[in-house]
Amino acid sequence: MQLASVRYAAMPLWNVYCPEGTYSAEDKRAFAERVTDLYAEFGVPRFFVGVVFQELPKDSFFIGGEPTDDFVRIWIDAIARRAPKEAQGWWMKRIRETVAPFVTDPELRWEAHVDETPRGLWTINGIRPPAEGSEDEKRWAADNKPSQPVGSG
Amino acid sequence: MQLASVRYAAMPLWNVYCPEGTYSAEDKRAFAERVTDLYAEFGVPRFFVGVVFQELPKDSFFIGGEPTDDFVRIWIDAIARRAPKEAQGWWMKRIRETVAPFVTDPELRWEAHVDETPRGLWTINGIRPPAEGSEDEKRWAADNKPSQPVGSG
Amino acid sequence: MQLASVRYAAMPLWNVYCPEGTYSAEDKRAFAERVTDLYAEFGVPRFFVGVVFQELPKDSFFIGGEPTDDFVRIWIDAIARRAPKEAQGWWMKRIRETVAPFVTDPELRWEAHVDETPRGLWTINGIRPPAEGSEDEKRWAADNKPSQPVGSG
Repeated sequence: MQLASVRYAAMPLWNVYCPEGTYSAEDKRAFAERVTDLYAEFGVPRFFVGVVFQELPKDSFFIGGEPTDDFVRIWIDAIARRAPKEAQGWWMKRIRETVAPFVTDPELRWEAHVDETPRGLWTINGIRPPAEGSEDEKRWAADNKPSQPVGSG
Repeated sequence: MQLASVRYAAMPLWNVYCPEGTYSAEDKRAFAERVTDLYAEFGVPRFFVGVVFQELPKDSFFIGGEPTDDFVRIWIDAIARRAPKEAQGWWMKRIRETVAPFVTDPELRWEAHVDETPRGLWTINGIRPPAEGSEDEKRWAADNKPSQPVGSG
Repeated sequence: MQLASVRYAAMPLWNVYCPEGTYSAEDKRAFAERVTDLYAEFGVPRFFVGVVFQELPKDSFFIGGEPTDDFVRIWIDAIARRAPKEAQGWWMKRIRETVAPFVTDPELRWEAHVDETPRGLWTINGIRPPAEGSEDEKRWAADNKPSQPVGSG
């Protein structure tokens, strides 16, 4: 198995719960770009990647039953290719590397989990996205927008 | 297979992420009613359908690593009956038709995905909802509220 | 099967959607503590439990297509041990008991569902959490914080 060639995810929606004021607008943009780059590296069209920040007041965000102001909780919905178990560990390391610059200086605690959702229940602009690696998908990636599939994808 | 008779979902929770100010209160109500109608058509009690709008400031909502003000990102948790693959495509078309009036004029980009969750881990008012198509469920639908199940459902 | 010995979940993230003003800061803290206690009873380290309250304005929160001000909608992502079907019912009763004080006086309608996510796609501070019941996990629970695993877990 060539881990580097595994396209782990097609669609990711990253949800970042963080205390109010953790990130500036510039930080959030840099964070979202870095997340998008992670997927684009594997040929995923950039517009497949959504990142949403939800800033939470201290009295609405609890870790271990205590209000928190130093914790970033990331949950990701993704359409994942069935991958061997080793790939899960590899992928979570890639996520760690991606997140790292945004949980140090100041140091923040953080947690992330990914849920896998069915590919057949996913559409963009009402269109079923083309198959991974297909010509249609390559065109979507190059155009950075969806268009009617031409192939069988 | 009679697609029209497939009850695809029992419980849906629709989460609509949109840029601030995309929808008026009236728009949101009409959108939620239309979503609810989609499920009610198949006998799902209306109060099984939850729709939540989360308006996001531009600097907290990124598509493809860029701040967006023209994208609606819908994610749905649903308890779905195991259905053949063709039904997935049919269902996503129904979702497209449901969403259509709210992503045109002005035209918005949009994406939707559905995740399927286990029926056994779902309760309303602490009660396990009755089986699909059961007399109990019909009563819940007619009353538009839960009550103690009478049958074996 | 000893139901009381089932550790149903390792990581839960509770998301509580409620109308604005439903809970005071004190209520939310008590609610989050009670949720955390439920898991801690089974040896889950307290910091594995996240609880997020999202207060929603009436015109953004719809049940059955109607704006609501009396409904609490809880959705939980959890890493669950595969458990027999009976355990699902037992677990949802534990959730009902946990939630009960917060949906009475005044009486609120409420609904909860749990989604199960893959354990291999979960990290805390970039570390894969130790196996359930392992010495490493016991140390994490006692310290109430993560540390480098020593064992094979």
